[in-house]
Amino acid sequence: MPVFLSTQDADFEARFRALLGAKREDSPDVDDIVAGIIADVRARGDRAVLELTTRFDRLELTAETLRFSDAEIAAQCARVPEDERRALEQAAERIRAYHVRQMPADDMWTDPEGATLGWRWTAVAAAGLYVPGGLASYPSSVLMNAIPAKVAGVERLAICCPTPDGVVNPLVLLAARLSGVDEIYRIGGAQAIAALAYGTETIAPVDKITGPGNAFVAAAKRRVFGKVGIDMIAGPSEILVIADGDNDPDWIALDLMSQAEHDESAQSLLITTDTGFGQAVTEAVGTRLETLERRAIAGASWRDFGAVITVRDLDEAAALSNRIAPEHLELCVADPEALADKCTHAGAIFLGQWTPEAIGDYVGGPNHVLPTARSARFSSGLNVLDFLKRTTLSKMTPEALRAIGPAAEVLARSESLEAHGLSVTARLDRLNRD
Amino acid sequence: MPVFLSTQDADFEARFRALLGAKREDSPDVDDIVAGIIADVRARGDRAVLELTTRFDRLELTAETLRFSDAEIAAQCARVPEDERRALEQAAERIRAYHVRQMPADDMWTDPEGATLGWRWTAVAAAGLYVPGGLASYPSSVLMNAIPAKVAGVERLAICCPTPDGVVNPLVLLAARLSGVDEIYRIGGAQAIAALAYGTETIAPVDKITGPGNAFVAAAKRRVFGKVGIDMIAGPSEILVIADGDNDPDWIALDLMSQAEHDESAQSLLITTDTGFGQAVTEAVGTRLETLERRAIAGASWRDFGAVITVRDLDEAAALSNRIAPEHLELCVADPEALADKCTHAGAIFLGQWTPEAIGDYVGGPNHVLPTARSARFSSGLNVLDFLKRTTLSKMTPEALRAIGPAAEVLARSESLEAHGLSVTARLDRLNRD
Repeated sequence: MPVFLSTQDADFEARFRALLGAKREDSPDVDDIVAGIIADVRARGDRAVLELTTRFDRLELTAETLRFSDAEIAAQCARVPEDERRALEQAAERIRAYHVRQMPADDMWTDPEGATLGWRWTAVAAAGLYVPGGLASYPSSVLMNAIPAKVAGVERLAICCPTPDGVVNPLVLLAARLSGVDEIYRIGGAQAIAALAYGTETIAPVDKITGPGNAFVAAAKRRVFGKVGIDMIAGPSEILVIADGDNDPDWIALDLMSQAEHDESAQSLLITTDTGFGQAVTEAVGTRLETLERRAIAGASWRDFGAVITVRDLDEAAALSNRIAPEHLELCVADPEALADKCTHAGAIFLGQWTPEAIGDYVGGPNHVLPTARSARFSSGLNVLDFLKRTTLSKMTPEALRAIGPAAEVLARSESLEAHGLSVTARLDRLNRD
Repeated sequence: MPVFLSTQDADFEARFRALLGAKREDSPDVDDIVAGIIADVRARGDRAVLELTTRFDRLELTAETLRFSDAEIAAQCARVPEDERRALEQAAERIRAYHVRQMPADDMWTDPEGATLGWRWTAVAAAGLYVPGGLASYPSSVLMNAIPAKVAGVERLAICCPTPDGVVNPLVLLAARLSGVDEIYRIGGAQAIAALAYGTETIAPVDKITGPGNAFVAAAKRRVFGKVGIDMIAGPSEILVIADGDNDPDWIALDLMSQAEHDESAQSLLITTDTGFGQAVTEAVGTRLETLERRAIAGASWRDFGAVITVRDLDEAAALSNRIAPEHLELCVADPEALADKCTHAGAIFLGQWTPEAIGDYVGGPNHVLPTARSARFSSGLNVLDFLKRTTLSKMTPEALRAIGPAAEVLARSESLEAHGLSVTARLDRLNRD
């Protein structure tokens, strides 16, 4: 059974803290293995990647077959049923339209001292996207990672997606094609991350790596960070639904289960102003868990990490939500916009009862790669800025240097950095001579 | 002597690669020590911090004196000479004016399907800033870290700055006061990072930690990453100057030395279209190295990591610059804007001979915390976005759900995530019944 709490309980604070602090994931320590794999790929390139693919994916490849050919991609894409193709196209279009609006503007201005200042955004030149193989091979994640990269202007976008025993997911290839991906390699694990970061004879290195993966992939991403940029290391998924009593308990139950079915470590939380409604949702969850295909996973997640919290009012709900900093926050209340204004830490907010979180996973438009494990306190979901970098620009005129150079000389002296000061002094001396 | 290269040399590519790949920093492996310190601070809070401060900084503090009192700060600030105060104020004002322009806008719109979409930026609630003590205690770095945080709207900004043997830098305190810092603690090292990340009885935990530090601080930041956000782990500083023959060799020599004097591992590079000018700069460096206060450091950096590269033309210079992805890039050429357009990977660009890099360190306005070690290929200098996070928003109407819900159902089915699909189906069923 999930935890039932009420802010009116005497021991609420202690129990809420326990819920917040619950360790939901025990990452196996694979760091030594991963360090060995990365060193091997750096030393032996393609040969190491091919041998590791034989070992882990039971698949014999050559340098020539590491990469999917255009013909193979076309053939696989042709296998996708028409309704799935159309759904993927609609999703891609909506995700693109949303992310295009995120493109930031350059700026350049001249200030009263005569200094011209500004910045310029440019795209990362090459990015790599990891796509898990097997059961967790999600075409929607391909769209969510690849489209922002291409919108940002990344010229070369490579995907690594393992195909254990040679099993290919045609939807992943179609999603890649719809997103404009340039290269697709059928390799996975730490060896794929190493190949993307350091390059091999066949795979050119990239500058940034994004995308979800298992413990080996996560450990490899941490290790290559610095050599390349990485996105966040995602933890298990979470949803918090804040609902008043005026909702269909079954809808809310399904929203909670749509996180719980991801993973036994996922967490589904309900905060409600109506104890009876909380009870009704719990019953609806029980009913749905009798028939759901993934009931074993969803049931375990709900049992171990689920919670229903009764609050006095929505202000209390918002305060708790900010302490949770949920990845997904669904606001099923009469005035969701007003409540959203008070919820300052959340990855994505879904407003009102007609916006189930699953819409955001696929076709809403916003990204579904979102900060987990309370990291919405300090980070954002994947977006075009993850594939851009800002270069600052400044240009002094002789007049501007006269106006602000002396302060630089004083501060350089106070920090005992003489050459810093002299580089200004030498120029000011010339101005004073002329 | 620095390395002299020409793109016309037969072995240029190999020697340039060697220059790019030169390992400039040997970080001592302090990870085990740091892990122990963090565990100790988590377990024993203030007591651990106080004992470690006694051990490492030879300073006896109590929970009451960990933090600078307002009276102490005021007394220390009063010691700052008038010219330094004015310089710091001018710098703070210019840095603030620049970063205010970086504040991103929220957005919200309704698309043709009736879906309302958008995003909202909110500030990190609490941030911690590490400021090194002793010789490398730079008031300018306080301004560069603290002002963007306050411009972003961070409510609580805490500084940790060790004061070994009790020696306080009044300029650091004044910089903190000018930046609007809320709390200043006289602690340092891994224990300060642990206290900021996990909190103690006296120090409340923060959500994000920025600022430079030694190997212990860097290792501690890596370790607490995930629990809190961190900024980049900075490596030794770099400058690349691209100059034609129409420059004063002494100015360029001083610009190169203003990086070299930071650190023996710093790197100063000159690319020029004019071999004779390169020679003249080298001679000017030699002359300046005879008298510079920090000649031992600057000389070692120039000797071990400096380079002068002659190119055929500025296009070649831009191509090499993009492979270097320098932290600081100075363009001392007739048309610096045209050259800047071709230099796509750089932390900060300084346009024209009247813009020595040192201006950017202090009073230009742009941030001086910039990506090192080629990471300008995928990351940006510190800016207000580092203290903000974006929450995405979506709201479906029944009509919008009718228009896009079916695609979500199809994709959920294709990914075998039944509850995802059912959360949409249940709502569409109601619409179809009504």
